[in-house]
Amino acid sequence: MFITFLSDFGLQDDFVGTCHGVIKRIAPDVEIIDITHGIPPQHVLQGALVLRNTLAYMPKGVHLAVVDPGVGGSRRALALNDGDGRLYVGPDNGLLIPAADHFGGIRDVHELANPEYALQPVSRTFHGRDLFSPAAAHLALGVGLAELGPPIAPEALARLDIPEPDVGAGRARATVLYVDRYGNIQLNLAREDMEQIDVAPGTRVELECRGERFYAVAARTYADARPGDIILYEDSYRNIAVAIRGGSAAEMLAARSGDLIEVTVP
Amino acid sequence: MFITFLSDFGLQDDFVGTCHGVIKRIAPDVEIIDITHGIPPQHVLQGALVLRNTLAYMPKGVHLAVVDPGVGGSRRALALNDGDGRLYVGPDNGLLIPAADHFGGIRDVHELANPEYALQPVSRTFHGRDLFSPAAAHLALGVGLAELGPPIAPEALARLDIPEPDVGAGRARATVLYVDRYGNIQLNLAREDMEQIDVAPGTRVELECRGERFYAVAARTYADARPGDIILYEDSYRNIAVAIRGGSAAEMLAARSGDLIEVTVP
Amino acid sequence: MFITFLSDFGLQDDFVGTCHGVIKRIAPDVEIIDITHGIPPQHVLQGALVLRNTLAYMPKGVHLAVVDPGVGGSRRALALNDGDGRLYVGPDNGLLIPAADHFGGIRDVHELANPEYALQPVSRTFHGRDLFSPAAAHLALGVGLAELGPPIAPEALARLDIPEPDVGAGRARATVLYVDRYGNIQLNLAREDMEQIDVAPGTRVELECRGERFYAVAARTYADARPGDIILYEDSYRNIAVAIRGGSAAEMLAARSGDLIEVTVP
Repeated sequence: MFITFLSDFGLQDDFVGTCHGVIKRIAPDVEIIDITHGIPPQHVLQGALVLRNTLAYMPKGVHLAVVDPGVGGSRRALALNDGDGRLYVGPDNGLLIPAADHFGGIRDVHELANPEYALQPVSRTFHGRDLFSPAAAHLALGVGLAELGPPIAPEALARLDIPEPDVGAGRARATVLYVDRYGNIQLNLAREDMEQIDVAPGTRVELECRGERFYAVAARTYADARPGDIILYEDSYRNIAVAIRGGSAAEMLAARSGDLIEVTVP
Repeated sequence: MFITFLSDFGLQDDFVGTCHGVIKRIAPDVEIIDITHGIPPQHVLQGALVLRNTLAYMPKGVHLAVVDPGVGGSRRALALNDGDGRLYVGPDNGLLIPAADHFGGIRDVHELANPEYALQPVSRTFHGRDLFSPAAAHLALGVGLAELGPPIAPEALARLDIPEPDVGAGRARATVLYVDRYGNIQLNLAREDMEQIDVAPGTRVELECRGERFYAVAARTYADARPGDIILYEDSYRNIAVAIRGGSAAEMLAARSGDLIEVTVP
Repeated sequence: MFITFLSDFGLQDDFVGTCHGVIKRIAPDVEIIDITHGIPPQHVLQGALVLRNTLAYMPKGVHLAVVDPGVGGSRRALALNDGDGRLYVGPDNGLLIPAADHFGGIRDVHELANPEYALQPVSRTFHGRDLFSPAAAHLALGVGLAELGPPIAPEALARLDIPEPDVGAGRARATVLYVDRYGNIQLNLAREDMEQIDVAPGTRVELECRGERFYAVAARTYADARPGDIILYEDSYRNIAVAIRGGSAAEMLAARSGDLIEVTVP
């Protein structure tokens, strides 16, 4: 049985290691796959999108996700399943929803309320350790969702606003969803949006970001461009993205997650 | 059988991966839990405190820890056990002692001197790879402590000075033990210290750090405060800590590990 | 069976976790050892040297390595074996060659061309996920090299220029191969080079880096020097390196990978 684990804990502190220890004390034979712990601190939307993008590549199992700015407050702690046989554990702040929606939708949701499946006393600031990891471990051992606590109606769950692009004639206003290690900029645009504004590989486009304009060319991959060229391409998660061959597009455009980028076909 | 592993190696280089390889060549079925490798380079005290704080959450086994500024010099290499059944491997610089003291005290200590249980030739600069990892792997396979080398009297081991707070009437002078990824500042104060100076949730206090003063409020968790408020709370390892809801207290106070912070009840 | 995994993916994004998931879906019982994912982005030479240096410490198995600036272009994807029983998977850009040469030389090379052993459709920008990880997983399950695609002549593979030092009377001009977390500077010099220019432990030498001169002393290990001293020593991978006891030599010398350092015996 596998538990996948995504968080904003980083790897500098012991948070991830401690959660691994908690899981292994309960379920020594379960295997943990760390999807990433590099979600920017408390950035629930990025966590939700990365979880949704990556689960198709993970073995089905229990999917633990913790990006949790509301820890210790009134937000609930959840376990739920989707229509495709996956189990999810995490906070009720929208983090788990885009992934579950993508895989057949949410079926059953239960609040983590049964003290038997938590570390006692539950701290007010580290539910990853005291609440979520134990619940994930017990689920991986076969404990039923309903044993963890009372049911919650899926409609009652917190949901995120996922930014939608504004696509018009020969232009699209997009939002930066993600900037990766290489400086590639992922936009909330899909191939169909590019087709709608008539951009195909080879088309030259203008990008406006933070008041500055840049010329770019639509391409299939980095290798289609010359070093230094800015390209617009479909990335490996099927989002349209901006890159520079042999450089960092995020540095060149000074772009960060949440920024608006205007794409225009001149 | 589990080996837990804590170090200041970071994850940029191959040091951690190489130690994993060494362990797996000797003991392929042993499982390694990485507590953290983000201890600041050569910061033995932080390594010792994180090890002590986290072991309660780890499966009992062999606990390998390497923060080792004296590598290649005259400091000894150790394996020891505590009164609660754990085995420890690391340098004789105090790193292992607070954890072992916390779990029933040190029982037997042996110097890593038997060349059979090391990689030959032992390098002068990477004992993590050549000495500590092989010893941990052999212990995990059931080799006895005494087979690793001659006994050492526990009283002869190097020990760390753990900074003690100065707690008086309505004030406490504390030391910053740790700053985490979120910018939370862990102090060497416990709940009892706060009670002694009459600070309870809701009490307003003054913090002085590097000559600057800040107002803070004692709280149970982040969610009790308004965004931007500085709070003083008991963290998940039962240390008193300073945080800002939705921000980095370490940035606001310009605080680093080792700094003094004066807490005053006005 | 073990798969070792080295890349420039970093741990901030999901790239490494996603590759783990892909491998585990194909080969749930295979164990992955992460050598490092901290190779600087697209720095093929550093990846190749770290792979060569570390494989001796890894269990023999499938050795997956991805530092791949040419992804999506015309460079081929490879699987190969060496004269010592190891299997390698990675791009045809020289990354795998120094390691394979070190372990008995390249024997058989096959191009990853069989769509059965890839994730379909193969993206143009993430071959680590779609091509290399699946091939490594299938090899670990016992699939033969020849099943992955047509053979390639070893002589036809891309190779790297590994910088050679220029060693003369009482002087050597070396290249910085690597700077590690502690700021230690690894040079492309071996002990024999130092003997040739008559440097033994205790010898004082002059280092010139970026137009600045520094005095250093040859030593066996950090502990032989006084705090603040610059030392020249044989590191744990048997390269000559520059360090400062209790500090960062890379910061002091402002040295980066690729820089030239002139060593002179005054």
